[in-house]
Amino acid sequence: MLDVLDQVRAGALSPDEAARRIGELPYAEVAHAVGASVIDHHRELRTGVPEIVYGAGKTADQVAAALRELARAQGAGIATRVDAAKAAEVRERIPEAEIHELARVVRLGVPAGRPRAAPVAVVCAGTSDLPVAEEAALVAEFLGAPVVRISDVGVAGVHRLLARLDEIRGAAVVIAVAGMEAALPSVLGGLIDRPLIGVPTSVGYGVSVDGLVALGAMLTSCAPGITVVNIDNGVGAAVAAVKVARLAVAA
Amino acid sequence: MLDVLDQVRAGALSPDEAARRIGELPYAEVAHAVGASVIDHHRELRTGVPEIVYGAGKTADQVAAALRELARAQGAGIATRVDAAKAAEVRERIPEAEIHELARVVRLGVPAGRPRAAPVAVVCAGTSDLPVAEEAALVAEFLGAPVVRISDVGVAGVHRLLARLDEIRGAAVVIAVAGMEAALPSVLGGLIDRPLIGVPTSVGYGVSVDGLVALGAMLTSCAPGITVVNIDNGVGAAVAAVKVARLAVAA
Amino acid sequence: MLDVLDQVRAGALSPDEAARRIGELPYAEVAHAVGASVIDHHRELRTGVPEIVYGAGKTADQVAAALRELARAQGAGIATRVDAAKAAEVRERIPEAEIHELARVVRLGVPAGRPRAAPVAVVCAGTSDLPVAEEAALVAEFLGAPVVRISDVGVAGVHRLLARLDEIRGAAVVIAVAGMEAALPSVLGGLIDRPLIGVPTSVGYGVSVDGLVALGAMLTSCAPGITVVNIDNGVGAAVAAVKVARLAVAA
Amino acid sequence: MLDVLDQVRAGALSPDEAARRIGELPYAEVAHAVGASVIDHHRELRTGVPEIVYGAGKTADQVAAALRELARAQGAGIATRVDAAKAAEVRERIPEAEIHELARVVRLGVPAGRPRAAPVAVVCAGTSDLPVAEEAALVAEFLGAPVVRISDVGVAGVHRLLARLDEIRGAAVVIAVAGMEAALPSVLGGLIDRPLIGVPTSVGYGVSVDGLVALGAMLTSCAPGITVVNIDNGVGAAVAAVKVARLAVAA
Amino acid sequence: MLDVLDQVRAGALSPDEAARRIGELPYAEVAHAVGASVIDHHRELRTGVPEIVYGAGKTADQVAAALRELARAQGAGIATRVDAAKAAEVRERIPEAEIHELARVVRLGVPAGRPRAAPVAVVCAGTSDLPVAEEAALVAEFLGAPVVRISDVGVAGVHRLLARLDEIRGAAVVIAVAGMEAALPSVLGGLIDRPLIGVPTSVGYGVSVDGLVALGAMLTSCAPGITVVNIDNGVGAAVAAVKVARLAVAA
Amino acid sequence: MLDVLDQVRAGALSPDEAARRIGELPYAEVAHAVGASVIDHHRELRTGVPEIVYGAGKTADQVAAALRELARAQGAGIATRVDAAKAAEVRERIPEAEIHELARVVRLGVPAGRPRAAPVAVVCAGTSDLPVAEEAALVAEFLGAPVVRISDVGVAGVHRLLARLDEIRGAAVVIAVAGMEAALPSVLGGLIDRPLIGVPTSVGYGVSVDGLVALGAMLTSCAPGITVVNIDNGVGAAVAAVKVARLAVAA
Amino acid sequence: MLDVLDQVRAGALSPDEAARRIGELPYAEVAHAVGASVIDHHRELRTGVPEIVYGAGKTADQVAAALRELARAQGAGIATRVDAAKAAEVRERIPEAEIHELARVVRLGVPAGRPRAAPVAVVCAGTSDLPVAEEAALVAEFLGAPVVRISDVGVAGVHRLLARLDEIRGAAVVIAVAGMEAALPSVLGGLIDRPLIGVPTSVGYGVSVDGLVALGAMLTSCAPGITVVNIDNGVGAAVAAVKVARLAVAA
Amino acid sequence: MLDVLDQVRAGALSPDEAARRIGELPYAEVAHAVGASVIDHHRELRTGVPEIVYGAGKTADQVAAALRELARAQGAGIATRVDAAKAAEVRERIPEAEIHELARVVRLGVPAGRPRAAPVAVVCAGTSDLPVAEEAALVAEFLGAPVVRISDVGVAGVHRLLARLDEIRGAAVVIAVAGMEAALPSVLGGLIDRPLIGVPTSVGYGVSVDGLVALGAMLTSCAPGITVVNIDNGVGAAVAAVKVARLAVAA
Repeated sequence: MLDVLDQVRAGALSPDEAARRIGELPYAEVAHAVGASVIDHHRELRTGVPEIVYGAGKTADQVAAALRELARAQGAGIATRVDAAKAAEVRERIPEAEIHELARVVRLGVPAGRPRAAPVAVVCAGTSDLPVAEEAALVAEFLGAPVVRISDVGVAGVHRLLARLDEIRGAAVVIAVAGMEAALPSVLGGLIDRPLIGVPTSVGYGVSVDGLVALGAMLTSCAPGITVVNIDNGVGAAVAAVKVARLAVAA
Repeated sequence: MLDVLDQVRAGALSPDEAARRIGELPYAEVAHAVGASVIDHHRELRTGVPEIVYGAGKTADQVAAALRELARAQGAGIATRVDAAKAAEVRERIPEAEIHELARVVRLGVPAGRPRAAPVAVVCAGTSDLPVAEEAALVAEFLGAPVVRISDVGVAGVHRLLARLDEIRGAAVVIAVAGMEAALPSVLGGLIDRPLIGVPTSVGYGVSVDGLVALGAMLTSCAPGITVVNIDNGVGAAVAAVKVARLAVAA
Repeated sequence: MLDVLDQVRAGALSPDEAARRIGELPYAEVAHAVGASVIDHHRELRTGVPEIVYGAGKTADQVAAALRELARAQGAGIATRVDAAKAAEVRERIPEAEIHELARVVRLGVPAGRPRAAPVAVVCAGTSDLPVAEEAALVAEFLGAPVVRISDVGVAGVHRLLARLDEIRGAAVVIAVAGMEAALPSVLGGLIDRPLIGVPTSVGYGVSVDGLVALGAMLTSCAPGITVVNIDNGVGAAVAAVKVARLAVAA
Repeated sequence: MLDVLDQVRAGALSPDEAARRIGELPYAEVAHAVGASVIDHHRELRTGVPEIVYGAGKTADQVAAALRELARAQGAGIATRVDAAKAAEVRERIPEAEIHELARVVRLGVPAGRPRAAPVAVVCAGTSDLPVAEEAALVAEFLGAPVVRISDVGVAGVHRLLARLDEIRGAAVVIAVAGMEAALPSVLGGLIDRPLIGVPTSVGYGVSVDGLVALGAMLTSCAPGITVVNIDNGVGAAVAAVKVARLAVAA
Repeated sequence: MLDVLDQVRAGALSPDEAARRIGELPYAEVAHAVGASVIDHHRELRTGVPEIVYGAGKTADQVAAALRELARAQGAGIATRVDAAKAAEVRERIPEAEIHELARVVRLGVPAGRPRAAPVAVVCAGTSDLPVAEEAALVAEFLGAPVVRISDVGVAGVHRLLARLDEIRGAAVVIAVAGMEAALPSVLGGLIDRPLIGVPTSVGYGVSVDGLVALGAMLTSCAPGITVVNIDNGVGAAVAAVKVARLAVAA
Repeated sequence: MLDVLDQVRAGALSPDEAARRIGELPYAEVAHAVGASVIDHHRELRTGVPEIVYGAGKTADQVAAALRELARAQGAGIATRVDAAKAAEVRERIPEAEIHELARVVRLGVPAGRPRAAPVAVVCAGTSDLPVAEEAALVAEFLGAPVVRISDVGVAGVHRLLARLDEIRGAAVVIAVAGMEAALPSVLGGLIDRPLIGVPTSVGYGVSVDGLVALGAMLTSCAPGITVVNIDNGVGAAVAAVKVARLAVAA
Repeated sequence: MLDVLDQVRAGALSPDEAARRIGELPYAEVAHAVGASVIDHHRELRTGVPEIVYGAGKTADQVAAALRELARAQGAGIATRVDAAKAAEVRERIPEAEIHELARVVRLGVPAGRPRAAPVAVVCAGTSDLPVAEEAALVAEFLGAPVVRISDVGVAGVHRLLARLDEIRGAAVVIAVAGMEAALPSVLGGLIDRPLIGVPTSVGYGVSVDGLVALGAMLTSCAPGITVVNIDNGVGAAVAAVKVARLAVAA
Repeated sequence: MLDVLDQVRAGALSPDEAARRIGELPYAEVAHAVGASVIDHHRELRTGVPEIVYGAGKTADQVAAALRELARAQGAGIATRVDAAKAAEVRERIPEAEIHELARVVRLGVPAGRPRAAPVAVVCAGTSDLPVAEEAALVAEFLGAPVVRISDVGVAGVHRLLARLDEIRGAAVVIAVAGMEAALPSVLGGLIDRPLIGVPTSVGYGVSVDGLVALGAMLTSCAPGITVVNIDNGVGAAVAAVKVARLAVAA
């Protein structure tokens, strides 16, 4: 903004024009007509994290166009919640797109120049929780963090978890993914000193349908300091974890 | 019923009278006018468990009268959900009543002649859950089962629980009492081969208020075979556990 | 663990190696790469109950591989929540698999060497509840308990239930399966002295959709000592019942 | 309305005035300034049932004034949800008022000239449900129906209910009052051919708090033809039952 | 039962056999193997209403077999919740079955010998509520009551309702069917002196989905004496209304 | 009504006939047999807004017939919630119908003679909310109001919103459409002095499914004076906004 | 902002200082240390409505200080949700404060210079809803709108409402206040062409507790164009109505 | 553990004793009999954070004893959820205790030797949210982090927030505290690149009671990477934030 004001003082810019620019910059959005979506190329400047394409409710055309635009301007793009059929359609349009079927993720290009980040551990309670865990892992890697994957350590066999503690402690921040009663973060939170982000999943049936019990259990954990994201929100957990992991190397 | 029918055949009883008696026996209730409550002296015959006075919503007079009637007919009586003020009033009326303030339990007399029962373990996650756990323990003892009390073994420090496993395994059946995210039964259920009954408690705040999250977590536990009772229902868990514990010695 | 420590004292094992082994044994998981699932062959040692394959959300390939691995190592395996189409696919892969269509259960092999167990009664309110009841019955039989099946005894015609009481009382433990208002366990619980496990079902419409009313009704039953599992959770009820039924013969 | 129109034709009334009167009659309300409440003396003409004073949220002054106005114009009045303290204050103002403490009902005067009605049975599951049941019984009697009271016939001892069936069948319509899991209407509905109105009560704790489970259980009853009123709404059940009971004698 | 006892006295029946019969009669179920359903031919004796086939969750084969069995033994049968495809399949099996597509009802045969009943009015708020209203009307007619149908009188144009009041008042009992905010019973309940049964429907979207708002609105109506059935439960309302309508002619 | 009464005075109308007419006019409905729906041609007289066809749950035939009837009598008609397949079928029947696929709206004819209205702004948070926003915009235009469309101004990039404030302030009334956490109305409400109507959408997943969080957030906004309609109810918001916008020019 | 920029060009202001001012003006808050609250004197400039003191959760000291500060700077202030005890304490501090006990409102000073506004009608269903209705009326008057109060026109006696329609139509905008099933706005919405704002109240018991049914009923009303505010939110409805009423005279 | 094993090899420890120790160390709890609570002095070793006394549901005696024990062993202790009356009682027992009335926090002693931490910003939407925000700030300071407090920046006046962005960006991690619709984190999350932890508060009324809407809004925020704790859980947010802030200086 000071630049704009300096130009006003220098007479290079009229006050009217300056007012307009201040209203727009540095937050102005550059709208590319890619289907119905608008790519926010400035989001990374403001928040440290580029736009991630949310594939649910978009057509394959829209997902492909958004990925191409992101790759064109930023070198790489990533889309989540792209099911197998839609992913196949995307690949027809962009043969070089990389598809992760279990995680429902499509990536185009290799991101470069991300800030350095310490390792992130993604710890997963059961095999049914793997799609959400893998979504978190892939997004964290896309954002530049090395990821340690620990799977199948649900608390119904708690010693499996105890046996992996050293690996988990090697990370700067931990994402714990669990459905059903979601006891994993409570047990883990009493054993490690790392920031711990819980991702409840919609895995289950009966009273657990939709993951509300898993969410409630994580929020009421007796282990203090666990923070939580929305049900099945692997992307959100990854973004939060990478912001922490960058601090751990930037200090 | 065969007795009644034999009397009909013998002409000692008219068919009309027999029809009336068959309608009533052996389930007929003997109503004693103790305040507004009716003591069901035959319940123990049918279900193996005598009536337990539910003190909430009853006056001290009603609780005292019910305990006296039970003690008169069966040798002993027990009342739950009797808060400190009401308990003091009961003791004014019945000085020999035994009051357990934390558990909000009042007992009168020593029950005799109960069926033998194997030991019941009452395992409690946190100190706030103790009133419910102690209610369960006192009722189980009243029904004739020896009780092993294990407290303060919440999963946020899971090795506390691991250190007590041998004691827990010494019981025939285990009651696990926990509030908040209630992860205790899940961890315990993966470590023992005993029947395990979960009691969610209303301990907590925010989304856990009223114990609904604890209840949901126990019902959706990834450790199969856990059964659950209503929130804060120590009595129900004790009755269920003692029925099991009697089988364990009766075989 | 004492074996390991004896080897350390004898010098046959280094302290480092012993620490590693103690961390892993006797709870170490043997991971077989059967699709995405991991077979926990030690679960039966810890909890008395082998792993039961939860078929929902698994492909026919994964179900078949899991059943084969269980049959290979333990002689028999059982999978639940396998719908008709998936079951047919499983049978293409394993012709000798036994399919129970109504109960959505697939079994491979005949389990041997299970602990003895007293009879389990599975009592079912309505014909719509039969799939869940049959799931419970088949799992209980797989775990080694004889099963008494009592169907169509809903309380809207209560004398149907009264006529079957002797059969029900012949079992050591009773599973009561009911949807809608789920009054069956309340009536039954006032008539028998056996441990009673309620399974609410998702049968119904309007306010009863998803079985939450049935679950709530069972949890608030005026008959004390009823314990409850998750909605439609026939497997959980069977596991709990068999643990009790084993105690009834083991004493 | 024809009267008004006849006057218009006769020129005794201007069209303007007639329009005003037609807008008001025969439904015009006569407002008496009794505190903040308005007594609707025409309601009985329209609906067959006079206004019943809802005492919750009214002062003793307002309740007393409303009762006096009703007694003045109609010979008698009745108020519900008047707790013990407020009832005592009402009696200070109206010594001849009759107080029913358990039912929280206050009545002034003896209603006369009500339409005849067949007997109404009020069947009550437990002693905690008695206040709601007695409210229903007193209102039904106030509206002119004889009442048969059947108490303490909860389904946890189902033969108590079977023993009273003949009494219940003697009524034209049955009100069933129950809290907790509220199984009473389901069992009763399978045994009688009378219209059956369920009143869920807020009796209970844990998941049953506020009576939502009891309400849901009654609405989803497997016995067809049960109708239901709001939780603890003894007045509504009585009004509905008396409307039916009047038909049973008026035919 | 007196018959049985008389035979015992006469020596024509042994006490053992008599005990068995008393346990079974008059409530014994005659089980016909019609698919998985059991036809309760005695229900009409006990409750005045024959079994009505609930078609949801049954195959066309099961529906057809149940209708045939009912028609064989009782002269006529009716099934509800039979969608268009299933109804066509039923007609392939029973060409003489009568299909009501909008109401999703299938009827076989003409019932005879039903008790007389006064007219029942079925009042419907909107055209989307018509399937439920018509289900209620057809079942009421099947049970022997004449039906007055009043449609499209939702309160958003309240004078439509006022114009039909005389027709409605001509019935002995009124069924009001409404979805969304379901204000119809409240307005109607203030205008008539007839028993009024509300049927909330699942019509709506957003917060009204599943009819919970409509149900709540009917239960909390400011017009006293309205009783309510489960969402979309036209059958239940019809059964309740016919029981009332029979009283209105039987007195 | 005065007309009718004048005729009575003049003897041109009997009082009986007048009473009938007064009961019917001016609110009498003219029922055209267009499928199952009834076109209320007088609604616009009473409420200023013509009937808008709600296409969900109607067949293409019914939608087409309703549109034709409205166009015949009033010059134009509009239908909402018509998905792409149904819209195509409607166009087969009415080739001149105009289809708005994203908004799921079908319009027939150009409305004429609507009251004048000031501009309405439709402000939309995200691209997924566009269908609801466009439904609101099209209905507002159909009712005669000019519409200003502002899209993609969600609060996660708040300066996008600040840059468009002047345009928004140019309207007389503002509709704000948002899903997920629906913060847009709160921010906007603190910046403008116009009436502001919030439309929560069902966009989201996890705890936001069905739009309940968006609805709750709008209702509890810290910016006073925001009013809200049902989830996804673009029609309702448009009707409310146009009523306001007409006042703004009519004064 | 142009003023600030002009000063920059003129050299009267450094760019740094200008940037600071632009960040603050015209939205900068003037913080007065009145207890813990901050008076936002600029809110009226932005939104047309001054700050209204929300008295719940504030001490009498804080309420009094806020009112004094508002009266000092703007000539008058108003506080809501001030119960009788707190209001008495406020009057001890400010004897000239005007207390409206039923509405729980305290006002200090007479506002002047408000924009002109057309009349607002506040229509109230029952006497229990009066506190919320009166809060709305007093706030609307404080904001400068004439108010028409219509009380006791609940739909259980719908002709009371019809008789008052002319008065209601005389207002530019209507606020409808109702609890329980809240049918008033639906009936009213079909009869008038004015903007209509519904205020659900928490009046009721059983399923209506907390006003959620009333809220749901208003949101799902079959009368299109009704907008709704939070439960018991008389202030919000008044602010929204006055914004509309100002447009009706400003055009 | 290696120490223990070395002693076994050296013969200084028997295998039995070693097994016991390994089961207990390093997680063994040292139980001090302070009322009913158990002080876990090893928690800080495992998780980096000492035990924080949760004052709700504890007596003043218990709170005081716990604080004294913590101060004795660790130099300082802190208790939360201690209301004014209880805090006064604690000070009677420990005159040197420091009481923060608004935040309901009591602290004893000055913690020393905490790990270094980067600054934490605590941003608060409204004055009613201050108690929760201050609890978070005090706990963060107790754990060794410098705290930047930013209050009264709710989004209804969004430029207040914009004016404070530089201060907020100066912290390593941000805690955002908000009730009602809780839009603050969404707006803030789009403007900064710091880890952002949301604390929903129970401030509000109507549909926002208990903070569920605020919680839902934070979880569904359109700004990715926000993590959330339980309603009113200032302690949890502080613990999570400090863990992050330590990483930011430890790298």
